[in-house]
Amino acid sequence: MQVIEKLKNYEIILGSASPRRKELLSEMGISFRVEVRSGEEIFPETLDINEVAGYLSREKSKLFEITGIGQNQLVITADTIVVVEDKILGKPCNTEEAKNILRLLSGKVHRVITGVTLLTRKKSHTFSVSTDVFFKQLSEKEIGYYVTHYQPMDKAGAYGIQEWIGHVAIEGINGSYFNVMGLPTHRLWEELSVF
Amino acid sequence: MQVIEKLKNYEIILGSASPRRKELLSEMGISFRVEVRSGEEIFPETLDINEVAGYLSREKSKLFEITGIGQNQLVITADTIVVVEDKILGKPCNTEEAKNILRLLSGKVHRVITGVTLLTRKKSHTFSVSTDVFFKQLSEKEIGYYVTHYQPMDKAGAYGIQEWIGHVAIEGINGSYFNVMGLPTHRLWEELSVF
Repeated sequence: MQVIEKLKNYEIILGSASPRRKELLSEMGISFRVEVRSGEEIFPETLDINEVAGYLSREKSKLFEITGIGQNQLVITADTIVVVEDKILGKPCNTEEAKNILRLLSGKVHRVITGVTLLTRKKSHTFSVSTDVFFKQLSEKEIGYYVTHYQPMDKAGAYGIQEWIGHVAIEGINGSYFNVMGLPTHRLWEELSVF
Repeated sequence: MQVIEKLKNYEIILGSASPRRKELLSEMGISFRVEVRSGEEIFPETLDINEVAGYLSREKSKLFEITGIGQNQLVITADTIVVVEDKILGKPCNTEEAKNILRLLSGKVHRVITGVTLLTRKKSHTFSVSTDVFFKQLSEKEIGYYVTHYQPMDKAGAYGIQEWIGHVAIEGINGSYFNVMGLPTHRLWEELSVF
């Protein structure tokens, strides 16, 4: 296929420590290695909320630009944010914060936006994809069960759609499921084919 | 939780050989064993297309009723169909048929309907859930790659949303992702809580 053939010319680097992103990129049939460069996740306060994930993915790619990348390298960086009632929800710092985030999402629709930046020595391209997620009303027992038995801490919005809570509490989504997991695989495939 | 507590009173039997359904029911935190009884999948021609999956799940549960089920047993049976342009697509018999089905789904929206029947000695309850799936235009190379490298044969509609093709070719869905995989987990959780 065009995309797979094209990517053979590059050494693909996934600039993300997320095990979900690693899994998703593998399932796309793409060969790559993971290399993470850490920076602070800061964005201008005046930035439109829909631009934040894309901006942060671009900031992550800049960490590669600074130290320099090889002639044939293609770096993929990404950032996922969860938005409810025009507020961005980050990763929780402790179980109580995780519970509060889940109480906020309960019985509501929220938006998950993943921004992705593709970077080579010659160019960079940023795009982002949004998915609406419909949560049922969660009981305190369900929230407690999830926070105790799973890992909400490393996740924006304090939940993983691929975990127990995604199975029993998400009524449906509108958009890409894999985007909610952390990478808009279909859109990434399309963008790679024209990059 | 209410559901988990309630289900402790039952021996849950999943009446399906599908590895996806087994995986999904496990991820819901439900303990069960698999027991399959085979019958023909036939439905009346006059049946409304939206009723077919529910009807077939009920037919599957009848195979358990006939031979009798234990006092504390709860049997879950399910059937998934793929509908495009008001035609039901079955499982392909060979690779050529698989390719033809994928050509038919290419660039279109189709509907995946999963019907589920809950059965105990005292009662039975059937429900079904529908999800819309948006496929991008597939190239012949992509169709060939998928059919060669994956297993379209055991799947209604000749594809698995959790496989490569689901990652690169599905633009989005409207509804439950797990329903497309073969079990509407959120609705099942709700139905079990009131069964």
